[in-house]
Amino acid sequence: MNAELIAVGSELLLGQIANTNAQFISEQLAQLGINVFYHTVVGDNQERLSSAIKIAESRSDMIIFTGGLGPTKDDLTKETISRELGRKLVVDQEALNSILSYFKKTGRVMTENNRKQALIIEGSDSLPNRHGMAPGMLIEIKNKTYILLPGPPNEMKPMFVNSAVPLLAKMQTNPLHSRVLRFFGIGESALETELMDLIDTQSNPTIAPLAKESEVTIRLTAKHEKKDVAIQLLDDIEEKISLRVGDYLYGYGEQSLPETVFCLLKKHQKTIAFAESLTGGLASQLLTDIPGASEVFKGSIVSYTNEVKSEVLGVPTQTLETYGAVSAECAKDMAKNIQSKCKTTIGLSFTGVAGPDKSENKEVGTVFIGLADAQNVYSFPYQFSGTRSRIRLQSAKTGYDLVRRYLRQLSPFGK
Amino acid sequence: MNAELIAVGSELLLGQIANTNAQFISEQLAQLGINVFYHTVVGDNQERLSSAIKIAESRSDMIIFTGGLGPTKDDLTKETISRELGRKLVVDQEALNSILSYFKKTGRVMTENNRKQALIIEGSDSLPNRHGMAPGMLIEIKNKTYILLPGPPNEMKPMFVNSAVPLLAKMQTNPLHSRVLRFFGIGESALETELMDLIDTQSNPTIAPLAKESEVTIRLTAKHEKKDVAIQLLDDIEEKISLRVGDYLYGYGEQSLPETVFCLLKKHQKTIAFAESLTGGLASQLLTDIPGASEVFKGSIVSYTNEVKSEVLGVPTQTLETYGAVSAECAKDMAKNIQSKCKTTIGLSFTGVAGPDKSENKEVGTVFIGLADAQNVYSFPYQFSGTRSRIRLQSAKTGYDLVRRYLRQLSPFGK
Repeated sequence: MNAELIAVGSELLLGQIANTNAQFISEQLAQLGINVFYHTVVGDNQERLSSAIKIAESRSDMIIFTGGLGPTKDDLTKETISRELGRKLVVDQEALNSILSYFKKTGRVMTENNRKQALIIEGSDSLPNRHGMAPGMLIEIKNKTYILLPGPPNEMKPMFVNSAVPLLAKMQTNPLHSRVLRFFGIGESALETELMDLIDTQSNPTIAPLAKESEVTIRLTAKHEKKDVAIQLLDDIEEKISLRVGDYLYGYGEQSLPETVFCLLKKHQKTIAFAESLTGGLASQLLTDIPGASEVFKGSIVSYTNEVKSEVLGVPTQTLETYGAVSAECAKDMAKNIQSKCKTTIGLSFTGVAGPDKSENKEVGTVFIGLADAQNVYSFPYQFSGTRSRIRLQSAKTGYDLVRRYLRQLSPFGK
Repeated sequence: MNAELIAVGSELLLGQIANTNAQFISEQLAQLGINVFYHTVVGDNQERLSSAIKIAESRSDMIIFTGGLGPTKDDLTKETISRELGRKLVVDQEALNSILSYFKKTGRVMTENNRKQALIIEGSDSLPNRHGMAPGMLIEIKNKTYILLPGPPNEMKPMFVNSAVPLLAKMQTNPLHSRVLRFFGIGESALETELMDLIDTQSNPTIAPLAKESEVTIRLTAKHEKKDVAIQLLDDIEEKISLRVGDYLYGYGEQSLPETVFCLLKKHQKTIAFAESLTGGLASQLLTDIPGASEVFKGSIVSYTNEVKSEVLGVPTQTLETYGAVSAECAKDMAKNIQSKCKTTIGLSFTGVAGPDKSENKEVGTVFIGLADAQNVYSFPYQFSGTRSRIRLQSAKTGYDLVRRYLRQLSPFGK
């Protein structure tokens, strides 16, 4: 089965946004073993969209559309496809009800064009939209499959994963089984060097490393008609990899490093609090983005000035005057104080220079991370590089990795 | 002149990377007034690339290729185009010299396939590559323009800006001038309804609304050979729009709401601190991501539990017991206390239910935002919807918008 993606939206052709939807869907289809041979982007123009549909129909079995399901005049994807297929648009009562209830609940005024969002192509399966108003659609006509998805990624992604993927998985015969291993604290080249012989002799499963946002992932993909055999193949190769670089392996699939730490804290019934200077709330934000964060997270102090460091967080002015705010000593005081103020098992602190300018005459990228429990307090120095955003993210992730290592008794803690 | 982009690379079709090159080039072309009607992505496959070229030739005056100029076997963009055009590949001596000198300088061994990178299509202008080995090309044949660019963005972007843009600017007679207006607190449909007559009669400038992450932007685009006339056209339409929905207009171009607030705080010499419950550090993180944030931001307390709310932030236990943490009263105490603890002009607080579960028997999406200065304290209730992430982001942005309105004396403050 060959698929092709058509994104509809003049904002893409004007370069206002990148077609990240195509990346997401392609990745999902690759995991299902469905070949994608083309992506097309076309503007909010009925004639050009019609022509793109005709070209796609001539070369692909499945066409997946994103965008153009909204309420405004230039949203015309389903109108155009319904015309091409010779099918009417009909009201999807469930979608209409959910639109009506949204406006009732929020008290906002419903304009007539919102009603248009509840229309679907006659004969199609409606894909419910839990994060927006326009439902998606899946329709099969003359051995071709058409899938229509909304453009906003926060609506499209869950709809695709929850509603489209299960339907597509059923259509596949010799499926691929994938597993993604996630590593932190080791570079792509170093990881590849460690696994060189395994990578050179790979066939089934395949081993594909990929560097992304200061992390490295390895995608293992096994092909077998029997799922349990495929899973055994994946287990075997993962074991070999773990023996060599297991300390850096923090999770699987889409799991983030903060999610791993969240699960570990929960499992060990530990709690955490942060004292943040250069990360400025980022470490707290990453944890509280996880549902149920309150089970392990109590609170933080973002101490962006020395005044707040001493008066609110209680760092002794002597520490600040003698060593400066960007110092191992200050990191220790911050970690210790937040741990005792919030009465948590662990206190984690971040202080450093995010840039673009030096601070206290210390180089951009100089960072100290402190970790305190009821008995001990540690501090670790780092020198990061790159933009302000990158230094902040790298700092936060490194802090999370320290907590992971602390809880799992890995180096520099325990073993 | 109508352009079309073709990106060549199986990694795009596998979803390993997004086609950010298309976004970059499209934005550049929009600024030059060159229409882009299609983006296509095709894999490293000669037959499918040939077919994509034929389709593009049938509908566009200019085709811009990215990717497939590298040394490996699956890099076959220029080979395929040279065959389509019936032109030989010839050595670009300057490119070859620079490749030879790179290998000499680094001491790395030059393999035979590196020599392939110095080949260009006969009759084309070579576009030098300052950040990699493969030169780009521009060739005009039978009134069509073909531009070939490397795939890695760090090579492609400077090449396009430095070598291609000047050549393209010369070809253009009637350039476009764009301005993006950014709105918060009004939905896309409501905004369109307010501006319906302007949108219906638009011609020059054009008016294009776009919804994005709980915000709406409007792109105004004027076409005129004289820049000052184009700018006057943009000023005139912006004035008309501002008269109707100016209170919601917070910025221009790529400016974010936190950036707007940062600039306003700086301009009015005010400082701010946050007390965050459901936003869990997000409001602080958004501000500290801006270089120079310390000029206006002093610190925050993330009070995720009632214990931290009372013991660290100093919210009276009576407030928590009588009204609960998710209440107007608690939002007021939080804002007041963080303002006085951090000694700032403004204290801003967030409390509410981010979900997925109810809290204190209050619905997911129930949010209170408090704002305190030295004299007054306000609190505002909201009912948001969507995912946890969306509710948190919507809360943080709404808080920033309140600060903007407070500093600009707009409703619900002042006028």
